[in-house]
Amino acid sequence: MAVVQPLAGVRVVEISSFVAVPLAGMTLAQLGCEVIRVDPIGGAADYHRWPVTDDGASIYWAGLNKGKRSVSANMRSPQGQRLIQRLIIESGPRGGILVTNAVGREWHSYHTLAEERPDLIHLEVPGRADGSTGVDYTVNAATGFPLVTGPADHATPINHVLPAWDVACGLYAALGVVAALRHRDATGEGSRIRLPLENVALATAGNLGFLTEAMVNGTQRERLGNSIYGQYGQDFTSSDDVSFMIVTLTGRHFRDLTEVTGTTKVVAALSEALGADFTDEGDRYRHRDALTGLFTVWFREHTAAEITAALSATSILWDRYRTFLELAGDPRVTANPMFTSLHQPRVGDYLAAGLPMSIGGSHPPAAPAPAIGDDTAAVLRERLGMSVDEITVLTESGTVATGSAEEAPG
Amino acid sequence: MAVVQPLAGVRVVEISSFVAVPLAGMTLAQLGCEVIRVDPIGGAADYHRWPVTDDGASIYWAGLNKGKRSVSANMRSPQGQRLIQRLIIESGPRGGILVTNAVGREWHSYHTLAEERPDLIHLEVPGRADGSTGVDYTVNAATGFPLVTGPADHATPINHVLPAWDVACGLYAALGVVAALRHRDATGEGSRIRLPLENVALATAGNLGFLTEAMVNGTQRERLGNSIYGQYGQDFTSSDDVSFMIVTLTGRHFRDLTEVTGTTKVVAALSEALGADFTDEGDRYRHRDALTGLFTVWFREHTAAEITAALSATSILWDRYRTFLELAGDPRVTANPMFTSLHQPRVGDYLAAGLPMSIGGSHPPAAPAPAIGDDTAAVLRERLGMSVDEITVLTESGTVATGSAEEAPG
Repeated sequence: MAVVQPLAGVRVVEISSFVAVPLAGMTLAQLGCEVIRVDPIGGAADYHRWPVTDDGASIYWAGLNKGKRSVSANMRSPQGQRLIQRLIIESGPRGGILVTNAVGREWHSYHTLAEERPDLIHLEVPGRADGSTGVDYTVNAATGFPLVTGPADHATPINHVLPAWDVACGLYAALGVVAALRHRDATGEGSRIRLPLENVALATAGNLGFLTEAMVNGTQRERLGNSIYGQYGQDFTSSDDVSFMIVTLTGRHFRDLTEVTGTTKVVAALSEALGADFTDEGDRYRHRDALTGLFTVWFREHTAAEITAALSATSILWDRYRTFLELAGDPRVTANPMFTSLHQPRVGDYLAAGLPMSIGGSHPPAAPAPAIGDDTAAVLRERLGMSVDEITVLTESGTVATGSAEEAPG
Repeated sequence: MAVVQPLAGVRVVEISSFVAVPLAGMTLAQLGCEVIRVDPIGGAADYHRWPVTDDGASIYWAGLNKGKRSVSANMRSPQGQRLIQRLIIESGPRGGILVTNAVGREWHSYHTLAEERPDLIHLEVPGRADGSTGVDYTVNAATGFPLVTGPADHATPINHVLPAWDVACGLYAALGVVAALRHRDATGEGSRIRLPLENVALATAGNLGFLTEAMVNGTQRERLGNSIYGQYGQDFTSSDDVSFMIVTLTGRHFRDLTEVTGTTKVVAALSEALGADFTDEGDRYRHRDALTGLFTVWFREHTAAEITAALSATSILWDRYRTFLELAGDPRVTANPMFTSLHQPRVGDYLAAGLPMSIGGSHPPAAPAPAIGDDTAAVLRERLGMSVDEITVLTESGTVATGSAEEAPG
């Protein structure tokens, strides 16, 4: 089946580092855009970020820059700046798009670029709304989440490991670009979009009710361990020390849980003793510790294999906890059509994820990430019509670097 | 300044519950789409979800359904199903869009609807790629993240509190719809998009390197508490028991941290004693515990106010941890133009977030969420040209419910 690339022909320049904007650019590339990531000579601060291979190549960088082209230039020199400006401006009717987290640089600001390209789509990602810096870890600290994560008796904050705000911000950024593109197609107008990383976190804390609960009720949810707020959901451990997450969102889920654990009668007795109505999610939540005490017995007396077999025959929502190493060999990865075998120079061969959505039944597959400057010469030739001699002059003057130059010592 | 709504005029129907698809629909509404959320009479399983007000109104539901219209119908009856089909199909050239997490229902499948609306854009979100169920909590258990979250000496999984996979999935879904819309504008072709929640988690675990590290190196990152993997970043506590998150991504950040904590000389001595190069992020990471021991002294000996003043004068990335209650009163919320005062029926007046991006300098503001069925009569009249008598027949037969009917007892 042919792979549908809904944004084929669209040209994007990305001046970025770390997670949010690189993810935005990669997602646009997965949808068919030609994305050029521009980096300083030698790479930005994220080019060697961990995890790395035994040889020191960044697995992280390769993961977030799949399918892009790489141009490397001295962005402190007027000549280098002008070349990048031209790549943004002289990119045809479906170009004129910049995404960047390098804010406050006059030479690639909206106003500077829109003078020459009035239909410019310019999306920038500052750390915070006031323009100050912020990264996922610091933004997260201020959101309230780390103080309600982890065991109820834990006193200090627990950070998330997934940089969730970066991920959400990158996806909002890709969405902003595509919405602006459609607006431009319909009206001819460009867009100036500003998406502070911290705003993503604050809006989400509000949208999900955590922040609104504090505003409206004057209270906030407690620290609950792995219990689900307002529902009955809990983790359990099997007799052979495997952890399971169990979720019941409906009355049917909950009835199935009491049946499979053989607690239907004792739960009914508990309901009567407490005056609780366990058909109500609020009552299941309020009395979660008593319920967990009853269910725990069954989990502790059964092996992971027995639990898996029993739960599979019910409506209960559940899964067993897995490590990254276990997940890497699990059929949900190895037999998943979203993952394709990728030969990634510098890193090796592995199963790499394409776009998580299939379009018309197929997943846009993963494509390798470039090394810094791999495409400098080709892009200058194709986009700006430069000759080999012109490119050599730019290389020798240190205005740009090509992939081979980047690999050289020094 | 006029608010730019890049997707004004686009019509979307959403058949959804919980987080991912409701967030997708709300985000599309924030970009200007007219979004109709369709629910069973009385509401779906998420209509009373916690947090709730003292009166039992769902703050959660209001948060994820802002700016939508609500139609309520008996989706088990052929008449109710046909009405919803017509709302999707007979919605003009910029309609014909369905987003749903109710998978496997033949009456609103791609194939059924595309027979009457060949340019249909149909996006469905199953739990897992194989079509089986899954929710954020169970998907997350299998990703590897809970086993590396929290204190290094903790033995059992720690779940995230933010439903990060739902949020990312909702944003991917909105992106998929807008990309498909542009594709349809350009080619006339519709799209069938399938976005399993679990694929979002697996792709992200791969994109960020966690899963790839396991595949390529055969190792996985350790449980690190609040340390940042591969960098120097750590939480600290002040003399008055306020927690701070500190991040150093560059040599300059790290030098500033040693200067502000008065440890420049002792860090240099440590570097020599260990043979470590603290200009290298890997060495800063490897020796993080020794470094943290040195920096901790300064934090313990200063108040939060003193620490705040000192860090503000440096390049260091930092923030203090806040509770949801503290955040609700913080200027980053109360003075942030993304938040506007919203009168939300049933819930009250509060500061609600609009879209986290500004477009042309303004944020699309927050709009109230409907009650179930609030717009049933208006939508049937406007979209399907029904008379008051026709709508009364449908209401009396239980095929649809209007807002006022929904409020009635029973």
